[in-house]
Amino acid sequence: MSRRRVVVAPDSFKGTATAIEVADGLAAGWREVHPDDEVRCLPMADGGEGALDAFAIARPDARRMPVTVTGPDDRTVEAHWLLLPGVDGTEAGGTGVVELANTSGITLLNPLRPLEAHSIGFGQAIRAALDAGVDRLVLAIGGSSSTDGGAGVLQVLGAQFVGVDGSPVPAGNGGLGAVVRASFEGLAALPPGGVTVLTDVTNPLLGRLGAVTVFGPQKGIGEGLAHQAELNLQNFATLVTDARGTDPRESGTGAAGGVGFGLVAWGATLTAGAASVGEEIGLAGAVADADVVLTGEGRYDHQSESGKVPSYVRGVARAAGARVGLVAGAVQSTPRDFDAVVSLTDLAGSGEAAMAETLRWLREAGRRLAAELG
Amino acid sequence: MSRRRVVVAPDSFKGTATAIEVADGLAAGWREVHPDDEVRCLPMADGGEGALDAFAIARPDARRMPVTVTGPDDRTVEAHWLLLPGVDGTEAGGTGVVELANTSGITLLNPLRPLEAHSIGFGQAIRAALDAGVDRLVLAIGGSSSTDGGAGVLQVLGAQFVGVDGSPVPAGNGGLGAVVRASFEGLAALPPGGVTVLTDVTNPLLGRLGAVTVFGPQKGIGEGLAHQAELNLQNFATLVTDARGTDPRESGTGAAGGVGFGLVAWGATLTAGAASVGEEIGLAGAVADADVVLTGEGRYDHQSESGKVPSYVRGVARAAGARVGLVAGAVQSTPRDFDAVVSLTDLAGSGEAAMAETLRWLREAGRRLAAELG
Repeated sequence: MSRRRVVVAPDSFKGTATAIEVADGLAAGWREVHPDDEVRCLPMADGGEGALDAFAIARPDARRMPVTVTGPDDRTVEAHWLLLPGVDGTEAGGTGVVELANTSGITLLNPLRPLEAHSIGFGQAIRAALDAGVDRLVLAIGGSSSTDGGAGVLQVLGAQFVGVDGSPVPAGNGGLGAVVRASFEGLAALPPGGVTVLTDVTNPLLGRLGAVTVFGPQKGIGEGLAHQAELNLQNFATLVTDARGTDPRESGTGAAGGVGFGLVAWGATLTAGAASVGEEIGLAGAVADADVVLTGEGRYDHQSESGKVPSYVRGVARAAGARVGLVAGAVQSTPRDFDAVVSLTDLAGSGEAAMAETLRWLREAGRRLAAELG
Repeated sequence: MSRRRVVVAPDSFKGTATAIEVADGLAAGWREVHPDDEVRCLPMADGGEGALDAFAIARPDARRMPVTVTGPDDRTVEAHWLLLPGVDGTEAGGTGVVELANTSGITLLNPLRPLEAHSIGFGQAIRAALDAGVDRLVLAIGGSSSTDGGAGVLQVLGAQFVGVDGSPVPAGNGGLGAVVRASFEGLAALPPGGVTVLTDVTNPLLGRLGAVTVFGPQKGIGEGLAHQAELNLQNFATLVTDARGTDPRESGTGAAGGVGFGLVAWGATLTAGAASVGEEIGLAGAVADADVVLTGEGRYDHQSESGKVPSYVRGVARAAGARVGLVAGAVQSTPRDFDAVVSLTDLAGSGEAAMAETLRWLREAGRRLAAELG
């Protein structure tokens, strides 16, 4: 057979392997069997963590733009945003992709700072992209460390949140309860092409399925702090809603400790799921002339047919007439409509063995899929 | 030691055992070790399926009220709603608990009817409770079969959705695209105590994380039907929003194929999660004088600290000064702050063995917890 065109577009195996590692492992296995094939790795994401990497790999012309920001515990963080140049190769007409995880993310913190962590660094990176003259922003907000309702971001963009003495309140959730006036007069204009926010969270800002209750514990907001943190966020939300009309019940406003809410107050649009990432990174174009597409995720279960990476990638691949292989760490529901399926748990003999040597078994899965689909 | 007071308040082990079965198994094991203890089962739920059972068991004075409704495929369904009597023991001042699953649920359908299934039966049961004179309604909307945006419910409650010829459109998602006028003049008044909707879903009505994309596949709306179904829902949503101001971006409006949206348009309040169920069934009162509280869920992982049943029950139990034991089918993250933890997978030797004989191992878990906490 002639040289095949293969695209490898998996999600991450959460807690075990990044989407890049999964794609690389599968590609390496495939190439062992069919060394002459043209294999392209296009790691996917579902709107949570990993979106910036997906962009960086999908767009070889992307440029990492360094930026120094104030991290979530006020220490300096050397971060970067991603410039997807416009048609003339410059910032003008280009897109800025900015990630919360590398500017205000929870991995930048140790110990956690439940009430003090903030989103200022993320705002500074957004500001840097705006100042560079991008036409449009794409913001990836997975992996946050704070529950500040986006106050940090908005403040860097020109909003003011002041207390009874007229001076700005302290950063972080802890300061939000003291805000008596919110001013948006100095707020930066949206870029001409708008601001799109990628998230995998549908929760509202407040209440029992809101940012504090659902995502607070992993940021150190335990039962002892939750009530106060919720009241702080409520006070902030009331002022922002009065001034900007932003509805804290909107699905997704509870993402990233309320950064979703803050960005909507700026004028951004929340969007979510594998389809949003796929469109942004141009998956359809990349698979247009593919013979085979491989995808996968850590656990394939009954939810996997519902807007997750594998079913989305399968739909795009089918539209292009490609065959589709699926790899999953564990298969808990019979996958429908794939041309080949490999479970790492079956390959390795047990879930423990598969997780202990994920990269080895991914490579083996790539070989199996190459034999079946090649 | 004197006679202990034990409350057993687990979630269901999804796909393996209902919350009632889990509670009964644990209670039976406990009683084998301490036959004189007073053990009370109070199965919990997180707002999805199982809520009606939780009410029925928590309130021994609850009365099952039979009602005959039109099921999701137009066949007659013998269903019931639950009356929690008022202080004088009658409907007056009482609460009606109505469940979508037993009136318009997916288990009532075979085969699936992706575009034709509707929520009319659920509306009829709501109507019956209103006609009986309840003061307040609690609606549990897990397990739906349709994607009709709540049009079926609203129509039974007096709304009208008509096509170009002035007559009502067909029931189900398929009719929603033909609606040209929505009238709410005849809509029933809310009961004086209001309408509370329990759900475990935070998704919005429309879009990539909306009712069609995320929950359509399990109702038979595959890739071939999804686009049309989304357009139908959009058309309906636009008319409802114009007339009632209901925002389809509100978190939870995508629950139950959009029944969440329809109920908000009526004036209901969406609420969610273990805390809502716990308050409704009076968990705090039930554990007020307990010595030990047992809880559990199928898989204990990093999300379990976030508003799920075990962490909620633990908080209520701690406030009452009780010790707390946890049982889980599988433990994937170290449980914090429980006085004893039992994993069925560890007891049985493997996940497969635990799932093959869940009731046996639940009983054994009850014995272990009794030995440790008794």
